[in-house]
Amino acid sequence: MAVALADIEAAADRLKGWAVETPLIESPALNERLGLRVLIKPETLQRVGAFKFRGAFNRLVQLTPEERTRGVVAFSSGNHAQGVALAANLLGVPALIVMPSDAPKVKAEATAGYGAEVRFYDRLTESREQIAAAIAQERGAVIVPAFDDPHIIAGQGTTGLELVRQAQALGASLDVVIAPCSGGGLLAGVATAVKALSPATALIGAEPAGYDDTLRSLQAGERRSVTPARRTLCDALESPAPGELTFPILLRHVADMAVVTDAEVAEAVRYAAATLKLVAEPGGAAGLAALLAGKVETFGGRTVGLVLSGGNIDPGLFARILRNEI
Amino acid sequence: MAVALADIEAAADRLKGWAVETPLIESPALNERLGLRVLIKPETLQRVGAFKFRGAFNRLVQLTPEERTRGVVAFSSGNHAQGVALAANLLGVPALIVMPSDAPKVKAEATAGYGAEVRFYDRLTESREQIAAAIAQERGAVIVPAFDDPHIIAGQGTTGLELVRQAQALGASLDVVIAPCSGGGLLAGVATAVKALSPATALIGAEPAGYDDTLRSLQAGERRSVTPARRTLCDALESPAPGELTFPILLRHVADMAVVTDAEVAEAVRYAAATLKLVAEPGGAAGLAALLAGKVETFGGRTVGLVLSGGNIDPGLFARILRNEI
Repeated sequence: MAVALADIEAAADRLKGWAVETPLIESPALNERLGLRVLIKPETLQRVGAFKFRGAFNRLVQLTPEERTRGVVAFSSGNHAQGVALAANLLGVPALIVMPSDAPKVKAEATAGYGAEVRFYDRLTESREQIAAAIAQERGAVIVPAFDDPHIIAGQGTTGLELVRQAQALGASLDVVIAPCSGGGLLAGVATAVKALSPATALIGAEPAGYDDTLRSLQAGERRSVTPARRTLCDALESPAPGELTFPILLRHVADMAVVTDAEVAEAVRYAAATLKLVAEPGGAAGLAALLAGKVETFGGRTVGLVLSGGNIDPGLFARILRNEI
Repeated sequence: MAVALADIEAAADRLKGWAVETPLIESPALNERLGLRVLIKPETLQRVGAFKFRGAFNRLVQLTPEERTRGVVAFSSGNHAQGVALAANLLGVPALIVMPSDAPKVKAEATAGYGAEVRFYDRLTESREQIAAAIAQERGAVIVPAFDDPHIIAGQGTTGLELVRQAQALGASLDVVIAPCSGGGLLAGVATAVKALSPATALIGAEPAGYDDTLRSLQAGERRSVTPARRTLCDALESPAPGELTFPILLRHVADMAVVTDAEVAEAVRYAAATLKLVAEPGGAAGLAALLAGKVETFGGRTVGLVLSGGNIDPGLFARILRNEI
């Protein structure tokens, strides 16, 4: 495997003092509704409002001095972009982020706000991989992948490391852990940490309808791509296929995938705001949506760890969801 | 004084396993913006979405068996109503809540949802005190005041007890603690706990423009009422005067009051959602509003404890604030 517990523990040491150790939050109302004990890991409270800072910082802090001067290039629709931009800013590394021109405004503005250079591209006519590769070559810059990199996976895995240890501190043992899944960096990292520390815990991923590439790949036993007919409300979960490095980890550790609709995700965003009093973006609420929709197989277990992975939602979209317009 | 540290510690024992021990949350973005270290105590994550559950439960759990059968009566525009309703529900005590007919829908519905009987009254033509007193006499029910009761004050004080101990666990010493203030139950309880455990900490209250009765009372050295010309966005902070029991405590412990406008409060609600990823209601965000508006005297200190006291905001109002319509 590309990533071991030791890599995640090393990442946790590198992140100490830089990343937020997000708390575990418990809602009696949610527990009563589900008949479960749900321990929520709100990465919405992480720097940049999503877990992505963990992996980005863990990668950038390991650049050589010479690589740091040449800078980094990344492509992302938003949260990885912000994670790389802030990590680069904190470490004094020049960063250029290639973002789709239709990326959520709040994410594009925040990325530029962290001091990164932003290069927009047309999702339909241009290849972000080619643009990033060309810029990287021209500048001798290091490309920072969104998920398919062992340092990125290890960084995201620190979310799982904290989750298990915080649950243990409460005297709770996790029967199930659920996290959103796009390219699989978060889920693979979390699964690696959780399975190493709590082998009996079942790992569940959540992905949006139309982007169930991980479910299909796990069923096939090999990486499968989807060619989505339309966008999803979960702008953070639009990867069409699991990664080369993430997939074998997911195949080894993930017990089940839950596929959620836009309506279920919107309901989860409303529930998070109205009952949990937490702001979650659609992709970040995918696991909560699966739980609320009764789509999570808990294998008879009662204690669930839930990663609320991001909270970067455009105010206008958030307002429309709050008004039941979506 | 009506309340001592021992009363608050006893309340904390009674609340163990019933109330949520809310975490301390820190936002690097907020710290950088203010040039301070702000330790946020999000009572938005408390049961019923506000600190009010603490005081209500601490009062109701001390009813005699005979009082429990006769039930309780309370009057409140919303959060105290929910706190009493849920505490009564958990303890099997009948509860009737007298609420203004223009109370936020989300608060009235939640109060009924917790199983309480709700009696609406007209804020302009009826006296909630008279209505509650009549019902209490007719049923032999106990009236549960919103703030002017030593058990209520002690219960709210557990927020301050946790805040100081959680800060100490981080190795932080609080220079200032700021909390919203209406009748003063929260601020008096928090001040009592904080001053007992950390005498050098300065206590600051935040109240809405037009409802600065506590500021005026502290300046006069005696209780003063305001006759507000209009409503405030802070529906939870509309008490026209500090309480008989709360005022002497506030007079003894409170160093300063910050008065915030609706515009500053709306900005704080937006900031909480966009940057902190927390849902705060206007009254609950009054302390944050004062900090963001530069209205908090920190006496040269850098470490601030901030009580975010409630998150029960109507979705429609929240949407309008998110859209900058307020």
